[in-house]
Amino acid sequence: MAKVAQQYLEMDPWVVVEKGFHPGRSLVSESIFCLGNEFMGVRGYFEEGYSGKTEPGSFYNGIFEDEDTDHPAPHIGMALRCHFLANAVDWLYARIKIAGERLDLAKSKFSQFTRTLDMGAGTMTRSFVWTIKGGKKVHVTFQRFTSMVTPNLGGQRITLEALNFSGKASVTMGLDFNPVQYTRDERKLWPTVQTRTAGKALGVVGQTERTGHRVFAGMHLKAPRGAASKLVKGDRTVACDLTLSLKQGERVSVDKIVLSDTEKNTKVKTATFWKRGFALAAKSAKTSYDEALARHSDYWRKQWETLDIVIEGSPADQQAVRFAIYHLSQIKHGVDPDLNIAAKGLSGEDYEGHTWWDTETYCLPFYIFNNPKAARDLLVWRHARLPQARERAVEMDLEGARYPMDTIDGTESSRSWQNGDLEIHVPAAVSFGIWHYVRLTQDKEFLYDEGIEMLLDVSRFLAARGQFRPDGQFGFWCVVGPDEFHFAVHNNYYTNIIAKKMFVYTLEVMAEMRKKAPAKLKAVCKKLKLRSDEATDWAKMAKKMILLKDEKSGVFEHFEGYFDMPHIDCDSIDPADFPLIKHWCYYRIFRWDMIKQPDTLLALFLFSGDYSMAEKRANFEYYEPRCIHESSLSPAIHSILAAEVGKGDLAANYWSHAARLDLDDYNRNTSSGLHTTSMAATWMNVVYGFGGLRSDGKVLSFRPSMPRMWKRFSYRILYRGSVLEVAVDKKNATFRVVEGKALSVRIFDRPYRVGRKDVVVSLGGRLR
Amino acid sequence: MAKVAQQYLEMDPWVVVEKGFHPGRSLVSESIFCLGNEFMGVRGYFEEGYSGKTEPGSFYNGIFEDEDTDHPAPHIGMALRCHFLANAVDWLYARIKIAGERLDLAKSKFSQFTRTLDMGAGTMTRSFVWTIKGGKKVHVTFQRFTSMVTPNLGGQRITLEALNFSGKASVTMGLDFNPVQYTRDERKLWPTVQTRTAGKALGVVGQTERTGHRVFAGMHLKAPRGAASKLVKGDRTVACDLTLSLKQGERVSVDKIVLSDTEKNTKVKTATFWKRGFALAAKSAKTSYDEALARHSDYWRKQWETLDIVIEGSPADQQAVRFAIYHLSQIKHGVDPDLNIAAKGLSGEDYEGHTWWDTETYCLPFYIFNNPKAARDLLVWRHARLPQARERAVEMDLEGARYPMDTIDGTESSRSWQNGDLEIHVPAAVSFGIWHYVRLTQDKEFLYDEGIEMLLDVSRFLAARGQFRPDGQFGFWCVVGPDEFHFAVHNNYYTNIIAKKMFVYTLEVMAEMRKKAPAKLKAVCKKLKLRSDEATDWAKMAKKMILLKDEKSGVFEHFEGYFDMPHIDCDSIDPADFPLIKHWCYYRIFRWDMIKQPDTLLALFLFSGDYSMAEKRANFEYYEPRCIHESSLSPAIHSILAAEVGKGDLAANYWSHAARLDLDDYNRNTSSGLHTTSMAATWMNVVYGFGGLRSDGKVLSFRPSMPRMWKRFSYRILYRGSVLEVAVDKKNATFRVVEGKALSVRIFDRPYRVGRKDVVVSLGGRLR
Repeated sequence: MAKVAQQYLEMDPWVVVEKGFHPGRSLVSESIFCLGNEFMGVRGYFEEGYSGKTEPGSFYNGIFEDEDTDHPAPHIGMALRCHFLANAVDWLYARIKIAGERLDLAKSKFSQFTRTLDMGAGTMTRSFVWTIKGGKKVHVTFQRFTSMVTPNLGGQRITLEALNFSGKASVTMGLDFNPVQYTRDERKLWPTVQTRTAGKALGVVGQTERTGHRVFAGMHLKAPRGAASKLVKGDRTVACDLTLSLKQGERVSVDKIVLSDTEKNTKVKTATFWKRGFALAAKSAKTSYDEALARHSDYWRKQWETLDIVIEGSPADQQAVRFAIYHLSQIKHGVDPDLNIAAKGLSGEDYEGHTWWDTETYCLPFYIFNNPKAARDLLVWRHARLPQARERAVEMDLEGARYPMDTIDGTESSRSWQNGDLEIHVPAAVSFGIWHYVRLTQDKEFLYDEGIEMLLDVSRFLAARGQFRPDGQFGFWCVVGPDEFHFAVHNNYYTNIIAKKMFVYTLEVMAEMRKKAPAKLKAVCKKLKLRSDEATDWAKMAKKMILLKDEKSGVFEHFEGYFDMPHIDCDSIDPADFPLIKHWCYYRIFRWDMIKQPDTLLALFLFSGDYSMAEKRANFEYYEPRCIHESSLSPAIHSILAAEVGKGDLAANYWSHAARLDLDDYNRNTSSGLHTTSMAATWMNVVYGFGGLRSDGKVLSFRPSMPRMWKRFSYRILYRGSVLEVAVDKKNATFRVVEGKALSVRIFDRPYRVGRKDVVVSLGGRLR
Repeated sequence: MAKVAQQYLEMDPWVVVEKGFHPGRSLVSESIFCLGNEFMGVRGYFEEGYSGKTEPGSFYNGIFEDEDTDHPAPHIGMALRCHFLANAVDWLYARIKIAGERLDLAKSKFSQFTRTLDMGAGTMTRSFVWTIKGGKKVHVTFQRFTSMVTPNLGGQRITLEALNFSGKASVTMGLDFNPVQYTRDERKLWPTVQTRTAGKALGVVGQTERTGHRVFAGMHLKAPRGAASKLVKGDRTVACDLTLSLKQGERVSVDKIVLSDTEKNTKVKTATFWKRGFALAAKSAKTSYDEALARHSDYWRKQWETLDIVIEGSPADQQAVRFAIYHLSQIKHGVDPDLNIAAKGLSGEDYEGHTWWDTETYCLPFYIFNNPKAARDLLVWRHARLPQARERAVEMDLEGARYPMDTIDGTESSRSWQNGDLEIHVPAAVSFGIWHYVRLTQDKEFLYDEGIEMLLDVSRFLAARGQFRPDGQFGFWCVVGPDEFHFAVHNNYYTNIIAKKMFVYTLEVMAEMRKKAPAKLKAVCKKLKLRSDEATDWAKMAKKMILLKDEKSGVFEHFEGYFDMPHIDCDSIDPADFPLIKHWCYYRIFRWDMIKQPDTLLALFLFSGDYSMAEKRANFEYYEPRCIHESSLSPAIHSILAAEVGKGDLAANYWSHAARLDLDDYNRNTSSGLHTTSMAATWMNVVYGFGGLRSDGKVLSFRPSMPRMWKRFSYRILYRGSVLEVAVDKKNATFRVVEGKALSVRIFDRPYRVGRKDVVVSLGGRLR
């Protein structure tokens, strides 16, 4: 790990502050200061217009444009379409002019700049003193939020205070569909199909050309009494020009409440959609900015009260873990089961706004333990996309459900056939998500109504994709595991073990349902036309699954022939060559034993209870030096396993790379969006790593440890209606249930019953 | 082999005849009746214009247009440009009108149609009786040739005979740059940059837009005395309108002689090029059609006298083998070392006109034994493209010479990175070509002046591309062998053995030169900045080369893990699914033990002397049933090996698929061009297969056999200045030198000296 932090933000446990504007970091700040609420997201750009480097971005979850994927050497089965999250309406659009000068931080003179993300209250505030030609000074403040209570609602407040003069200010506030798609040659995607610039509320509908997706935005302004206003309509823009009177020493504010709506169904008439949007807007017309903000901030207050993580001894780490919780909560909190999590959330165009297997593998634990409704919604999202997964399986001459590698709408949208098509652990990850969610929540209703259908169709896919070898063993040929540095490999350990586990789990659920929900099982089997021999086959496949292992060392073989691959010493690589994918010819990368991200090791984490400590140690010691961490998800998993096998310094070192990935822009690409799914790994790094939680057994188990650089830390998890707090200091781990019933858990391999009273367990020698 | 012949041509030993027009086969005929002479090639289309299905094609060797290759998921090192053979000037352009009716075989009434390729004389002739409205009948004959003596020269003769009337005929003859590129949305590639329609000769220069390649065509017409003529200029066309007087029962002919020239260097001024073209045209202006044709046909007569293959007992096979010799001779016969052989010759746009490793691996033996000058030229062609090969190696973070998979100009032009980049046996094939050519011709001048430089730089590339495994063994990871149905495999047997052999050969040549040409060796090592340890490394790499083998069975393992792959019974595949690549999802193909074309088996053929008969038999019996033959080169190699291991019926069966691949359109794609390089395999199928020649030893060796369906066959090869004839009948093989000195050979493993007198060896039990 030769990566270097690029710190420019203030350390504070509750706020992220940029003190003094850093124009060279403007795109990074736009990502870090983004706001969202599952329904929509908006980057932390300068809404008043900025002629410097900026990428204003406003995204609505699930709203995309698409394009054809032309393969230079096409083959049957390659995905032919790619969709991408569409940069939509700039609902914060504003322009400010005083004494003939337009505010533009690239050109204007200003001082005392601060940009603040208040994670406690859920707001982004920016303020500075603007010095206008001739020495007039105005204190300018922008505040915004995206409501966690009313997800269609966004609020914006602009406050001006003339410090040394009185006069007029011209403030324009509007809705603008001119933002461009930066990853598509700065093309504008949104012709406006309906606008209104009369009456009390302004509104506009934009529609993408190929997918026909529509976004409605309607706004209400609240300006000071006596401000002159004029409605104006520009190209793809509606706005209101206000003339405000500034009096020296007095603060003048304009509030904007914007209500948005989206429509993917092209059959819905624009008139209908328009009416629906305005009804939404009308409903909240009575709400003031302060009221809406109060409700929103109240949501955050309660959230932090219940489920915070506290780290003492490192303000940087405290900030980092709250930053992770903050972004994870705002990207998904149970608004709509039709919305999933893109790898970069709604914070930028990078990764096309696609949802990956990260959702089930990395993100789900956070939601299971913080917001089970959100967790369930994520799985229901997959259930609703079974038709697309089935269609994709057929395109590949297979059957069952082939969940996509990269997607927004459920269809395969990967532009890389060698990864998109060959990573067949992706559908298995959906089954894994069901397995993990159900065992922790006991949500049998979901399992019997929706889970089972996915489990059956994923097993069916895996059975069709796999093959029996002449010796009767079963496996998967021509795959890519999580490690994308080796492609078209055979019998990747991770792929095979997760398939085996999911075959077994599917059969267990069938057996359970035969007793407890026979009618539902019969109905789903009939619906899927399940053949009588399929379950028998799955049992055989699970039993005969090829799982390569060197018995002497206890190391599982990454894939067939991996142990014989030429070795490269990762430490010998010039750090200037990182990331390798951007500096090395691709096949210079692929022909070594170097691994991109945890692959075999991921299995040892996910199915922790299946492996002995000796196996974990042997595998960690073998694979850790071979991993180059060209996935943001990699360091956290290594940290968690390092903590487990007793390598505290290594665990701490990996944590330092995982925790502040975006805040310190370790990967030099935060500019194009946050590593949202990687923040789930940050959360796990505390809870599963130093916190020592394992959740794959019958009861929760804990092996906490204390990293050297902290004094104390505590975390809370929601489990079957109870809130369990685990607090760790240099000597002890203290467990107590702060809400709900007592829980049976295992701590350092011994059973405990934890209730309101502290259960204190000594860390023993586990202090690092 | 579930493929089926589609016969519609007459069987004749010397001519290919289409009796009666087959409009449904018009594109196939255009390929089969194509003419060429290395410099240029022209499809057998109807030059008078045809409104039915047609793809007029006129190609100049090495003249191409290019385009960007956009990879949906680009990686560093992927080739970014693809060039393609450009369909150029229709120099046969003609239009005929009589009594107000334009001749167009899609609309006109006609009878007695024949289209004839006379392989003895090298002409293509087409004739029919045209019945014009009102019952007027005209016998129309078209004849054309592309001179083998003056490669820039093409001749065309149109003969009209009014059968039952006298009257006028309007005949237009010209040069037309309107032909379109069928594989590029029928785009026109050739704006004309200079034209002349005055004076005695017409001329035109077209130039491609991106590459700036230019083609000049100038023409002279010889019309009957008294014919009125008018020069006309159209869009991208220059032509002459002639009015001919037809008298009942008299034949009236117009002759056209066209001289072409090409220029790839954009620095050469068009005026200079234009002048050069006209000088060429002027030089041959005195030549009549008959004189030029006589010289051309004389070339063919001599060719056949010296080096024919005669097959008795099967007119179809006799025709097929002459068809192969004919096309191989016309695509390459020593005109210019700057011209190579495209996989489809100059007969169509398919495969982009690219040269592959087919040249050295499959084609070279034909030229070595028929036209050593042409063979040498092909290797010199590679030498001249060392700079591009070196540049490509650097693009891949390597060194030495990485000869391209697909190319016209020497740069990598493959649109398929997974094949183009991973098939590293391609540069090794160049060294193999040198090895084969030099051991058979003893052309040390070439070896010391040019061969050595390629050998060194290919070895250097292989050394950089390969890797030592932790156990000290050397090999190649992440490759594709000749079998493109398995990609990113490790230690492909073919790749490794050819690399090993070429390392050893390079070292042998160095050792030889140290004694015989030390100054030349020193100079080339200095030029390449050869490091002192490189040769030592190559020796070690050769010695430690991983060559996987099952010692019990004697079968070499195709690549690491191949023996463990799931098995598919090739016979179980529905023949309607062929070719699989057009009917199956690509990764349904890649995950079985099914092989596309000979891979390990190819090594056992190329390096025949290194393997025992038992090894050959074991490997043939193992791999033959696993091959699906989705390369036109596959059946012939299988036939050759089947003959060698004593499986005569199988050899005959494969021969029947290999021999008439294009004539009977087995692969249903002859329409877009002939399988020219596959014709070299057809030639080898007789000479190396039933003829039993092996040329990888110190002397030529023979193990002839007689397939059941023939009565007798004989072939001739040119070897070190002598012409050796081998004639095989049901009982004996008879060897004699018909020209040149006596030769020492081995026949059925025993040494013989063959001179003018017949050496008769009994086939023994080898009669099938």
